[in-house]
Amino acid sequence: MQEKFDTLKSKLVQIQNVNVSSALLNWDQQVYMPPGGAAARAEQIATLDKIAHEMFTTDEIGELLSELSDADFDVNSDEACLIRVARRDYDKARKLSPELVTEMSRTFSLGQRIWEQAREAKSFAQFREILTKIVDLNIQKAEAFGYEDCIYDSLLDEYEPDMKTVDLNRVFDQLKAGLVPLVRAIADQDKRVDASCLQQDFDETVQWDFGIVALKAIGFDFERGRQDRSVHPFTTSFSIHDVRVTTRIFKDMFSSGFFGTLHEGGHALYEQNVSPELEGTLLASGTSLGVHESQSRLWENVVGRSRPFWQYYYRQLQDFFPGQLQAVSLNEFFRAINKVQPSFIRVEADEVTYNLHIFVRFELEQALVSQKLKVADLPDAWNAKMDEYLGLTPTDDTLGVLQDVHWSSGLIGYFPTYALGNVLSLQFYNQSLKDIPELPEQFARGEFGPLLEWFKEKIHRHGRKFTANELVERLTGSPSIEAAPYLNYIQRKFSEIYDL
Amino acid sequence: MQEKFDTLKSKLVQIQNVNVSSALLNWDQQVYMPPGGAAARAEQIATLDKIAHEMFTTDEIGELLSELSDADFDVNSDEACLIRVARRDYDKARKLSPELVTEMSRTFSLGQRIWEQAREAKSFAQFREILTKIVDLNIQKAEAFGYEDCIYDSLLDEYEPDMKTVDLNRVFDQLKAGLVPLVRAIADQDKRVDASCLQQDFDETVQWDFGIVALKAIGFDFERGRQDRSVHPFTTSFSIHDVRVTTRIFKDMFSSGFFGTLHEGGHALYEQNVSPELEGTLLASGTSLGVHESQSRLWENVVGRSRPFWQYYYRQLQDFFPGQLQAVSLNEFFRAINKVQPSFIRVEADEVTYNLHIFVRFELEQALVSQKLKVADLPDAWNAKMDEYLGLTPTDDTLGVLQDVHWSSGLIGYFPTYALGNVLSLQFYNQSLKDIPELPEQFARGEFGPLLEWFKEKIHRHGRKFTANELVERLTGSPSIEAAPYLNYIQRKFSEIYDL
Repeated sequence: MQEKFDTLKSKLVQIQNVNVSSALLNWDQQVYMPPGGAAARAEQIATLDKIAHEMFTTDEIGELLSELSDADFDVNSDEACLIRVARRDYDKARKLSPELVTEMSRTFSLGQRIWEQAREAKSFAQFREILTKIVDLNIQKAEAFGYEDCIYDSLLDEYEPDMKTVDLNRVFDQLKAGLVPLVRAIADQDKRVDASCLQQDFDETVQWDFGIVALKAIGFDFERGRQDRSVHPFTTSFSIHDVRVTTRIFKDMFSSGFFGTLHEGGHALYEQNVSPELEGTLLASGTSLGVHESQSRLWENVVGRSRPFWQYYYRQLQDFFPGQLQAVSLNEFFRAINKVQPSFIRVEADEVTYNLHIFVRFELEQALVSQKLKVADLPDAWNAKMDEYLGLTPTDDTLGVLQDVHWSSGLIGYFPTYALGNVLSLQFYNQSLKDIPELPEQFARGEFGPLLEWFKEKIHRHGRKFTANELVERLTGSPSIEAAPYLNYIQRKFSEIYDL
Repeated sequence: MQEKFDTLKSKLVQIQNVNVSSALLNWDQQVYMPPGGAAARAEQIATLDKIAHEMFTTDEIGELLSELSDADFDVNSDEACLIRVARRDYDKARKLSPELVTEMSRTFSLGQRIWEQAREAKSFAQFREILTKIVDLNIQKAEAFGYEDCIYDSLLDEYEPDMKTVDLNRVFDQLKAGLVPLVRAIADQDKRVDASCLQQDFDETVQWDFGIVALKAIGFDFERGRQDRSVHPFTTSFSIHDVRVTTRIFKDMFSSGFFGTLHEGGHALYEQNVSPELEGTLLASGTSLGVHESQSRLWENVVGRSRPFWQYYYRQLQDFFPGQLQAVSLNEFFRAINKVQPSFIRVEADEVTYNLHIFVRFELEQALVSQKLKVADLPDAWNAKMDEYLGLTPTDDTLGVLQDVHWSSGLIGYFPTYALGNVLSLQFYNQSLKDIPELPEQFARGEFGPLLEWFKEKIHRHGRKFTANELVERLTGSPSIEAAPYLNYIQRKFSEIYDL
């Protein structure tokens, strides 16, 4: 059995080498590739993805997996988990034709470039044709995978294994019940927060340098990773020892660059701290996007937008930007970075309204893939949903339906994992607080090592060994994902800021 | 037949997609990869190279090639050339085992990183073990390919198809006969050239910016390419529409960065101007390294170190560096960038002594692969050859045997193509001068388009369709590569500068 396992593992490592090569081609496309390279790049990625798919879906791999299904590895061992997760991936991959895999790769790669151009031209019309194709390919994929309850389940499963739309609706209903009244209460409040201190002229290089300070502080290892700039921030990894984040920086929006950097840094900490034992295998990555977002949102918000964090760092930030911030008190700054205000752009939304942006996308995605909504009608539908949830109508499509990279690169079913991540971040963080009650005092001393160590031990090192639900149960003892801890955190934090 | 050809072409394009993906992994390794990524990267490159080799060496490709061998395509058509070159590559590739291909990829990728570290530590000892392995793998490769006259032929053929060591020796003997006395005559001359104006404090960003101006001027298309920094400058391409150069910049050595940029720019012009009809196929690249070097050395030296070039650009350069160059006359500057002085570093050598550096490497490589010289004895042998040809002994190995990246990344048999490129550059340039006698006057007006157009038409667009010898014959009517035009150029140029 060990010999068979070694054969399987060695084959899976080869396949993973092709997959991460494709990921590097994608990273390069988003970060450094000259415009002329787009067409050839789409073909290159399509070729690699097709090869990886063919290598993975051979009968030989299927036979090895079957033979190993009754191997007597401990259920939580690396070996048993690799076999289990590979089986799951294999069964799904076998349902996709090589033609569909190739066509998706090619289209999703081209989609990104067309989206960038459409965004620059502020023209949804330029994006419509490829997006229609992307939605259609996602429907084909979902049908190929199959589903029981609704087609969206099939897409969601790619990013959040074993999670169903009905589960999301349960959690999201809890969220809405808490958040919608809170947003209203804050809007009705006389007390206004002034965030103009964040909209001054912040030199981009100095912003970059301060972001690097923060990345190092939370534990990002630059010997095993790097940061670059891109249109839309993202994290990717080609090895647990080569994990890359990107950020974007705007001169007049300090929050955008800095909290984007912390967010991606949170993703990267997860990827950098997977156990070296899993390196090179398909377990060497975050287990689901919800859990991934629990890490990014934790570092961005629960840590990065907390008072203790800035008790330590605000003095340093003032030294980076004396002209801009010398006259701004810590309290003013803390309130500014936590100002609640319905706005157009998801990634720049405050913690309270953020999830409303997700609901907009979640509902539109369901309508698109169940073919109740046509792509041509998407901008209007977007604007209607924005009005419903946030009381705003985007003044152009870059502030609306063109703002996110996800759909352009084929990711449908991905957005809800952001809200799920918010919810999970508090379920997990409360548990870490039980184990280490002095975490906030540590943050106020600039010490983030204990929190990182806790997450390394409880989540990071396991990679994809356990699902989100399994992790929740292992960590919290709770049998399910619940919004209450997150809502409690939000209510406590913002009641104080807004004197509710 | 057309159907068979389309099948073959489509398969070759897929294989090429894998090859260029591997090239991107290599580019990234040299340019942006964090140190931690090295081990995984070596495996990733090895996997892609193995896959490309396996895809290429199938019986099916062999059968298609055989069936197409009597297709009635015109001998100079894209189709006939693709079949011919693919056949050549195929026959060679079939001689290599997948194990050897994988082992070479892995070792050559690791070798680069180890070389970088050894270089930083100024320690040949750190590099010895992997270099021994690299030499051994090259010997295995050469034996697998087979050869008639000497083992070095087999390695040389990888970079300069159909060229033999005996041919090189003929041309190099011509070169030595002209250059060695010239170097001596210059050394014996009382007239000294002062190059200290090039060793001032030149801001790196400003140097970079001036390099970009020059790249644009000679015709490098930044929509279809980019420049980055690396330890050792190089050019690579992932499509004719995505061609990348790198450079290195030293604050106190203006020539190093600037002429390095022009050199790589010359390579890039070749790659960017291959006919779009050949895009994606294995013809979409320079035909041999000698011809490639004829382009890079042409733009670096024949154009970039000419008086007309600086008649136009020196005023601009003075504007970039007023503090450093305002008081330096055009004539002083022109003489400085052409100062002849035996020195340690090949890439910074003047045009007269440059080829002597090549002879050092050419002879050492032959000794290594014929096993007359052990890697352990290489530094001493290097120093002895440097003394023989240049009258110098490197003070440490970074100024000696550790200076070039080539051996570390497996390239043995590559160096002589630099000297060959020098020779070819003048055979070709003289021909372009016959067609466009006013080229020097155009340079003096900052016009390089006509020269580029000439080379596009005569060489670039053909990609790998014709060999170096075929190009020489097509362009010049001469049946062979001859050193005389190059020696005449060198003698005329430096006799004037040194009043010989």
